[in-house]
Amino acid sequence: MKTSRPIALVIHGGAGLMRRSTFSKDKEKIHRDGLTEALRAGYSLLEEGYPALDAVEAAIRTLEDNPLFNAGKGAVFTHDRKNELDASIMDGRSLKAGAVGSVTIIKNPITAARLVMEQSPHVFLTGKGAETFAKKMKLPLVKNSYFATQVQLDDLKKVQAREKAIEEKLKRHPNAKASPHQPTKLGTVGAVAIDYLGNIAAGTSTGGTVNKRYGRVGDTPLIGAGTYAKNGVVGISATGDGEYFIRAVAAHEIAALMEYKGYSLERAQKEVIHHRVGKLGGTGGVIGIDSTGKIAMNFNTPGMYRGWVGADGKINTAIFGKS
Amino acid sequence: MKTSRPIALVIHGGAGLMRRSTFSKDKEKIHRDGLTEALRAGYSLLEEGYPALDAVEAAIRTLEDNPLFNAGKGAVFTHDRKNELDASIMDGRSLKAGAVGSVTIIKNPITAARLVMEQSPHVFLTGKGAETFAKKMKLPLVKNSYFATQVQLDDLKKVQAREKAIEEKLKRHPNAKASPHQPTKLGTVGAVAIDYLGNIAAGTSTGGTVNKRYGRVGDTPLIGAGTYAKNGVVGISATGDGEYFIRAVAAHEIAALMEYKGYSLERAQKEVIHHRVGKLGGTGGVIGIDSTGKIAMNFNTPGMYRGWVGADGKINTAIFGKS
Repeated sequence: MKTSRPIALVIHGGAGLMRRSTFSKDKEKIHRDGLTEALRAGYSLLEEGYPALDAVEAAIRTLEDNPLFNAGKGAVFTHDRKNELDASIMDGRSLKAGAVGSVTIIKNPITAARLVMEQSPHVFLTGKGAETFAKKMKLPLVKNSYFATQVQLDDLKKVQAREKAIEEKLKRHPNAKASPHQPTKLGTVGAVAIDYLGNIAAGTSTGGTVNKRYGRVGDTPLIGAGTYAKNGVVGISATGDGEYFIRAVAAHEIAALMEYKGYSLERAQKEVIHHRVGKLGGTGGVIGIDSTGKIAMNFNTPGMYRGWVGADGKINTAIFGKS
Repeated sequence: MKTSRPIALVIHGGAGLMRRSTFSKDKEKIHRDGLTEALRAGYSLLEEGYPALDAVEAAIRTLEDNPLFNAGKGAVFTHDRKNELDASIMDGRSLKAGAVGSVTIIKNPITAARLVMEQSPHVFLTGKGAETFAKKMKLPLVKNSYFATQVQLDDLKKVQAREKAIEEKLKRHPNAKASPHQPTKLGTVGAVAIDYLGNIAAGTSTGGTVNKRYGRVGDTPLIGAGTYAKNGVVGISATGDGEYFIRAVAAHEIAALMEYKGYSLERAQKEVIHHRVGKLGGTGGVIGIDSTGKIAMNFNTPGMYRGWVGADGKINTAIFGKS
């Protein structure tokens, strides 16, 4: 199976306000451990010759199962105190893709997305319909409460208390300037891999934004916005203010700059994060692997949970701006 | 208000199996009349100096209200005999966008999409949540039965009878080759406009595919797939096998080929329809206007309902391959 082509894997666990100065050693350790576990799950498959798609799915499943990250178990709460999950995956070889949106009882949304891609004529299934499909595919289902964690419930309560305070203030002073909603965490998890055959795959999974309502869907399940992969070009997974990544068609824009303007992965990511998403007012980050196996990660937030294994086969993790 | 910049409007009412040989004169006339009515609604606004966004919304509302087209009233039925509608709109000036997915009681989904863009911090709202938002915005709501037409119900029955026959056949002969599901109509409506100020807008609205299930969402509400607009580059609206347009990130791919590879609108549309969507196995069409006001329409189906008003201010409509 092994050829001279390099294998590589890069993952993220969300971009956000993580700063070394406010991070305890314990908190840092458990997050780095979580990232390491996901890298091991994915990279061991690549080493054994499995396709990039399998590595992406395995890494993301591990992050979904880990309550520390905003995807699967540990997802943020909606306005109505539920967990609603989105995920997507794309195969750079066939340009096939699958996604699920607003699902509430599928234990691993990334696996559901892969089944949509491989076992249905569709790309994007949503809500109860997606769950009916998952049942038919015999995917493990859970109660919605499975995804709930106290940390996220506390976060929702904080955000809702703040929202209420702003509403009260606006009632008393209709012209008062209310500072906009500040998400405390721009969580999403994602992975990009390239296998021995040069096949690239990318996937992303999320609980969305805390306190979301109105059936809001972000960039995560949208092919071209949160996830994109094309053999010979690049694989991309994004995290951040989903709305800005949709408007910038961020993942596909990076691919287009590389394919049509000859940008390197690094330059294309920087252009899109700082000058497209950033210029529109959005924050977040992207990870990616180009067709030679080169890895890049860029973000305009203080930190981004991330990890990678490149040509040297060594596991690396990082959280803050410079490490 | 009037300057030397040209205004232009192009619309489509879906691509599909329309052939002159099987079209009655009456059927041709009512479709051309429907397209003309939508062009008038949109173009009169452009002439009066209203923004491209208003023209796009007005043209699409007219097509949504017309039972002949698969959007709003006259939408195709889902597997469960309901009408579930998707729409999106994008403003090329601000790169703001709005979309609704799987809505069932909003009379004009394109207007809901515009309100998501202008009155919410979100881009994409779905299902009951989107309807709650629409209620809050005081948008006209209707019963789901408002959208139903006998023609579409008959079509669903035909498709479901065929599906059942295939299932029976497969029960008797498990290895029989069942021909894949053939949608009878690749319906969607869409519009692209450029106003006196050079602002470009694009929008798309649809009932999706007949007999759809599992909360399937196509390319129509996905920014970059079914709809995209960027001032100085292009506005695009697509129609066809949504899954292939998502995988090709079709609308944004056309924009990228123009912006980064210097393709003309015509060449970029042909590349994407024939060599991207087409190569993946998909059929459909796209309409667009470039930053100089030039209009192009391309499709790989026998026909596409379409209409346009260019620099000469004359209303044109066409249905078949060559007229």
